[in-house]
Amino acid sequence: MSSETTETCDAFLGGRVQLYQPADGYRAGVDPVMLAAATPAQPGQHVLELGCGAGAALLCLHARVAGLSLTGVEMQPMYADLARRNAALNGADMRVVEADLRHLPPDIKTRGFDHVMANPPYYDRARSTSSLNAGRDMALAGDTPLSDWIDVAAKRLAPKGYLTMIQKADRLPDILTPLMARLGSVRVRAIQPRVGRVAELVIVQARKGGRAAFVMEPPLIMHEGERHLRDGESYTAQVLTILREGGDLPWGH
Amino acid sequence: MSSETTETCDAFLGGRVQLYQPADGYRAGVDPVMLAAATPAQPGQHVLELGCGAGAALLCLHARVAGLSLTGVEMQPMYADLARRNAALNGADMRVVEADLRHLPPDIKTRGFDHVMANPPYYDRARSTSSLNAGRDMALAGDTPLSDWIDVAAKRLAPKGYLTMIQKADRLPDILTPLMARLGSVRVRAIQPRVGRVAELVIVQARKGGRAAFVMEPPLIMHEGERHLRDGESYTAQVLTILREGGDLPWGH
Repeated sequence: MSSETTETCDAFLGGRVQLYQPADGYRAGVDPVMLAAATPAQPGQHVLELGCGAGAALLCLHARVAGLSLTGVEMQPMYADLARRNAALNGADMRVVEADLRHLPPDIKTRGFDHVMANPPYYDRARSTSSLNAGRDMALAGDTPLSDWIDVAAKRLAPKGYLTMIQKADRLPDILTPLMARLGSVRVRAIQPRVGRVAELVIVQARKGGRAAFVMEPPLIMHEGERHLRDGESYTAQVLTILREGGDLPWGH
Repeated sequence: MSSETTETCDAFLGGRVQLYQPADGYRAGVDPVMLAAATPAQPGQHVLELGCGAGAALLCLHARVAGLSLTGVEMQPMYADLARRNAALNGADMRVVEADLRHLPPDIKTRGFDHVMANPPYYDRARSTSSLNAGRDMALAGDTPLSDWIDVAAKRLAPKGYLTMIQKADRLPDILTPLMARLGSVRVRAIQPRVGRVAELVIVQARKGGRAAFVMEPPLIMHEGERHLRDGESYTAQVLTILREGGDLPWGH
């Protein structure tokens, strides 16, 4: 397989973010936008993303919160290169480190971050069928266990720092067990395609040294109506605000 | 403290179930009704409830599904006695065993049940303040870890049998970890007081030998509206059907 790939340039947050992506490989969709919206970063804070891909989540966060120090770790050279170019394209102060998250370079391993974000691969490599596209395959079905992602994130958080993750809903138990062991104040928000439907994704947040009880947030509903009635856009008002205007997804009620 | 206690006789499921309860101790409310509604028992099956109290959940299930063989285990003599009297009052074929669930009698330990139900105490005794009412205290804050409840339930299930539990939402992680280790096909349904509110309770279901992926069901919403607007009843239509007409709470979509 050739390493050459056709790229597209896609707009996120109503044009606030421009992103080069491979036309055929793993392509950022709604999920990294939701991840960034759910990360409660404040101006001036330090943010690390594990597995940043082409940089969609970090750059959406950059568009919403001013003055962040952004660091992305990405194992695949092609995506790390894209992330660097996308940072420049969007005027973001963002460092991209090409590394396996289990073997971070010393200057990252000695830092504590206010926020760690992660959108780990959605499929267990052992169970998934292989893809013709090796880059997409790695992005969709990594071979790093979720508990390793959480372990590394917990170590890299400063005291009281937040981990925010998005993942397929059916892996929630695999996330909660290591999360409860390493972090605290865990919150879960299910993302349902519609009212009355099973959740497809979950956003999970935890705090280093947090002592609050576990909280099950009300779900985020993606589309209006109980079923698909018409073609075209049907996003709920809350989701439209996040996707088109760079709105945040607040926690706690 | 005297062992004598004043009783009330309360109606459940629109009068289909009558229940003697202590006026001052732990009193069954909406929770055992929801537990029974979420238990997918079929006529002729064998059902075990761990910690059956005065028998509210078993008797609600009896009112909804004909021809069940019902067994309740209850550690506290006063509640075991009430459960027996309530079974007679409602004409239910229900055996009540006075025992600690960790020390079940041999004739229970050798049986396999199609369904196990449980509404374990909601507070961790180690963290809770003591109550003046010892019976209520035990029912609200037992000293048996949730993992023991799940362990005993898993052992007492026949192959492909279902465990259905209701519990405070903040203990979901404590439930999921042992549940995923011992059973499969786990499903969670959060119970929210209103749309947009944090869940207060969760109903969890798992199957012995089940291999399906974890499912996060859409939440059950108790009350209409986003906030309390008027006094009096405000239950949603789905909840009213369960509470007043003995409707079930189906799983899967």
